[in-house]
Amino acid sequence: MHYITEYMKNVREKKPLVHHITNYVTVNDCANITICAGGSPVMTDAKKDVVDMVSISSAVVLNIGTLNPETVESMIIAGQEANDKGIPVVFDPVGVGATKYRTDVAQSIMNKVKISVIKGNSGEIGVLSNTGGKVRGVDSVTDLENSMDSVRKLFNETGAIIAMTGETDYVCDSKTIFKLNNGHEYLECVSGTGCMVASVIGCYVAANEVTAESVASAISVFSIAGEIAAVDTKGPGSFKPKIFDALYNLTSDEVSSRIKLKEHVF
Amino acid sequence: MHYITEYMKNVREKKPLVHHITNYVTVNDCANITICAGGSPVMTDAKKDVVDMVSISSAVVLNIGTLNPETVESMIIAGQEANDKGIPVVFDPVGVGATKYRTDVAQSIMNKVKISVIKGNSGEIGVLSNTGGKVRGVDSVTDLENSMDSVRKLFNETGAIIAMTGETDYVCDSKTIFKLNNGHEYLECVSGTGCMVASVIGCYVAANEVTAESVASAISVFSIAGEIAAVDTKGPGSFKPKIFDALYNLTSDEVSSRIKLKEHVF
Amino acid sequence: MHYITEYMKNVREKKPLVHHITNYVTVNDCANITICAGGSPVMTDAKKDVVDMVSISSAVVLNIGTLNPETVESMIIAGQEANDKGIPVVFDPVGVGATKYRTDVAQSIMNKVKISVIKGNSGEIGVLSNTGGKVRGVDSVTDLENSMDSVRKLFNETGAIIAMTGETDYVCDSKTIFKLNNGHEYLECVSGTGCMVASVIGCYVAANEVTAESVASAISVFSIAGEIAAVDTKGPGSFKPKIFDALYNLTSDEVSSRIKLKEHVF
Repeated sequence: MHYITEYMKNVREKKPLVHHITNYVTVNDCANITICAGGSPVMTDAKKDVVDMVSISSAVVLNIGTLNPETVESMIIAGQEANDKGIPVVFDPVGVGATKYRTDVAQSIMNKVKISVIKGNSGEIGVLSNTGGKVRGVDSVTDLENSMDSVRKLFNETGAIIAMTGETDYVCDSKTIFKLNNGHEYLECVSGTGCMVASVIGCYVAANEVTAESVASAISVFSIAGEIAAVDTKGPGSFKPKIFDALYNLTSDEVSSRIKLKEHVF
Repeated sequence: MHYITEYMKNVREKKPLVHHITNYVTVNDCANITICAGGSPVMTDAKKDVVDMVSISSAVVLNIGTLNPETVESMIIAGQEANDKGIPVVFDPVGVGATKYRTDVAQSIMNKVKISVIKGNSGEIGVLSNTGGKVRGVDSVTDLENSMDSVRKLFNETGAIIAMTGETDYVCDSKTIFKLNNGHEYLECVSGTGCMVASVIGCYVAANEVTAESVASAISVFSIAGEIAAVDTKGPGSFKPKIFDALYNLTSDEVSSRIKLKEHVF
Repeated sequence: MHYITEYMKNVREKKPLVHHITNYVTVNDCANITICAGGSPVMTDAKKDVVDMVSISSAVVLNIGTLNPETVESMIIAGQEANDKGIPVVFDPVGVGATKYRTDVAQSIMNKVKISVIKGNSGEIGVLSNTGGKVRGVDSVTDLENSMDSVRKLFNETGAIIAMTGETDYVCDSKTIFKLNNGHEYLECVSGTGCMVASVIGCYVAANEVTAESVASAISVFSIAGEIAAVDTKGPGSFKPKIFDALYNLTSDEVSSRIKLKEHVF
């Protein structure tokens, strides 16, 4: 997996500015994980502020975890500006399918903004791809019949790289599906680990190419950081700070020795 | 205290969805403590989102720590929907009495929504019950003349279970007052421990009955987690993650050996 | 540095209420650092709430990290009320210069409110003083030609005590510039350490005089807490909780043995 090493290095050297319009629940964790991945976070959602901020950013992350009509407008403005400037847009459709409003907002953003990467849990990807997703609050309660079919269908419909996270993560583009099996059960016990993954993806597509490889790399480094953080850890509370430590200190050797990634070429 | 064991088990098995409309200061801690108590948190305050979200939730927590007119409207919409559906509503009147606006908002919510549980510090409960509460910012600076009278008066006026937290916690319904004496002084040194208690109460009334017993159980498990977290801890910063660990790992034996709860039947 | 000891003692004894209107990214850290410094935090931004809350506070901290038109109005209302009541106002112009909107907002606040202390990184102070600041997102990417000239120029233009933070911190009033050299590189790896410094400054000017000495003391105690937190620490994630511990437990002896402060009298 030599390209992960290369991608890690690029993020740390380029320190890409990643602009987030995200929820107020996990925003602090998104900022800190961006720093620990090697990027530079900025969070701003005022309509008057986003165009200028996007224009100096290297990626935009849009997360609908907490919504209001103002920030939805800002997401669309920011996303369209990013499209105009050729800056990648990562979309995290948190809780889509749980309420009509979330589904409407997700659809509206996807209609008006060209998304580079969609990252969601199996419920969210299942809802967006119409393959049987079910979401309760912000958690997936889905067992998709065929995960590979779901991500391929959503890729075909949107042209965005699809990242579906869970016990196994799937990353799909036109030619490949990656299956990733890193991580730790504690990651399910901390609010916002999904949001944090989207931030790390933002860093990796900002500093590298916008490909399934770079998205899979981002998910892998985060999941491996989670594994390292879990060693000798007593619970989700003390686990969380250690995720940041682990990602900040992550070495190529740790990645090589732990990575569980399979590539399926169509 | 066998029913606490039973209540803990129910929360962990049912994993109730607890919908929060809460302040942006401590919202992340509320999400994480809900997970560690055994529930599933969702935070959303958009007017268009709350009705659908309440309808799939098992409890609603309304916290006025940071206010704006939009979220106050959402709280009332969410609270009324919860009333219609028979879903319990936990109200945390943060800082009531410190400003006229907070007092007005608290009154308005209590007039328009049937509250199941009111949780506050002695200043807040003193203000709401007109028994001499004083609040500075969001802290109580009250010595109530008679705590038992204050909680009983507020119960009689509202019909809500009253939970007054402090060095001693009081929980009151029509027939009983519980006096709880667990906890640790570090809990006063961490922002949002009061908000977190309301989240845990949300989990316990969601998965069990809406009674003084379940509210007292929720406060007890949180306070005991605080005691365990304080062991060999050097300050409030490293204390906080350990609260989450302790609640996540809490056993019946730890509860039995530590609990300090007295029941006063009228 | 006996006055730092005195100032620390005053904050801890008076427990000043410090009212924040601040960003939603780091607000929880600001609340907790205020407690650990010895103060009492309150965060509220509703227009209807701020006048009453300011009137019972001992300092107001205005931070433009995340902006919207409503909270900008609230900042001006709160700042003017503080001016009327003689309560010090600490201003943190986060990201000024990165976007036109931030620059406009900062200017508008500074025109309408008499600021007691301006705290920023070298980029932000460089922008406000027109001495060549450059800001990317919320990070400084400036090497000021002459830091002492920049802070003096901004002091002369505004009459506010200027605190410019970085590897070396500068604090300037009419007669003195302090150069501070405490801190640790991990402080750059945690989102919000700049915001936290503003909160600690709020505590110190609230409980003491509004002077370069009290501002320098606040920065010093925070930076020294950062040094102590870094001892035997493995990364930014586990470093952060230890900052709170270290500030909470900070002793005069630790301050005396670590402080690196030089005073330049004009």
